[in-house]
Amino acid sequence: MSIKPWKVLSRKRDKSYRIFNLRTDRACSPRTGRAYDFFILESSPWVNIIPLTDKNEVVMVRQYRHGIQDITLEIPGGIIEGEETPEDTAIRELCEETGYRTTSELISLGMVYPNPAIQQNICYSFLAKGAYLAGKQHLDEMEDIETILLPLSDIPRFIREGDISHSLVLVAFYRLFIEYEMKMGHVDPHLPNRGTIGGD
Amino acid sequence: MSIKPWKVLSRKRDKSYRIFNLRTDRACSPRTGRAYDFFILESSPWVNIIPLTDKNEVVMVRQYRHGIQDITLEIPGGIIEGEETPEDTAIRELCEETGYRTTSELISLGMVYPNPAIQQNICYSFLAKGAYLAGKQHLDEMEDIETILLPLSDIPRFIREGDISHSLVLVAFYRLFIEYEMKMGHVDPHLPNRGTIGGD
Repeated sequence: MSIKPWKVLSRKRDKSYRIFNLRTDRACSPRTGRAYDFFILESSPWVNIIPLTDKNEVVMVRQYRHGIQDITLEIPGGIIEGEETPEDTAIRELCEETGYRTTSELISLGMVYPNPAIQQNICYSFLAKGAYLAGKQHLDEMEDIETILLPLSDIPRFIREGDISHSLVLVAFYRLFIEYEMKMGHVDPHLPNRGTIGGD
Repeated sequence: MSIKPWKVLSRKRDKSYRIFNLRTDRACSPRTGRAYDFFILESSPWVNIIPLTDKNEVVMVRQYRHGIQDITLEIPGGIIEGEETPEDTAIRELCEETGYRTTSELISLGMVYPNPAIQQNICYSFLAKGAYLAGKQHLDEMEDIETILLPLSDIPRFIREGDISHSLVLVAFYRLFIEYEMKMGHVDPHLPNRGTIGGD
């Protein structure tokens, strides 16, 4: 069996919900020839950033998330606005949410699909070394965010114990650990750049 | 600053979209006292399963995903139905999507929030050792799924090269690698159970 994409017969934008739009596609199965409705969330790409200080601490954020009506422990991130590049968004969100800036170029940790079944968008992850506190947070009215520094070597334990539970935050750290081929809990404190993923 | 949950003032279910419902909450910021609308996708919990054969190969699935209108490489999984436990769902989806069954108890790889900003649901991950082909697939009309066996030790490379790009699939493998404290690409072929996460 070879898998083929479905043919889209019609497309209708239903309603806007501030950070996403609901779209209904009618598409036809190449296997059965029958048509079905698909409901898709359209939104701009998302960006997450792992800011790392010279002491190998991650600048993390505690914030209220209304989906689960609870406080989460995450890395900074947000939605690409206007003509921003993913790197622009990462640097802007880092500054707005934490007041931190970074001394070095961002290092790409790749992209993933948050949910390819019902979302069309992608999420980029970045590493920023040399993060330092440069000023105050600039939060919008719907954001309550607290900055917290955690040793990078403790991250796998926080994930394992459920303290870090946002799927896209796990993805960023997994990509970081894969890039540096680090054994969990045994992190090289100097984090040399690998040649294949660009340097700073 | 200490982060507090927001108080929900009203809640309204807008519309049903087959695998999720759209809900609008009006909630009040404990910091500013102002009220805002939040748009939440309600759905049942999701389950993903890493089926591992006695040869340390992962039973993976290639399928069409309409959100990105492309073919993805994933592990089996799906939505909890009716009174199912997460384990029931994992075993059912494995069988329906691949025809594989498993000789051993499932091992929990924890839970994550797919997106705590706009979704209330959680996603469970499991490892199933001793996976074996027991019969045919049982696909529904909207599913075109092809089974493919991949060595577990190749998974980090497939992720790094972008061939595996579904965030919740990365999460399951990351939790597996954390649980077994495996160095990327250097996987113990016998995968002994750790005492702390239950045995088979």
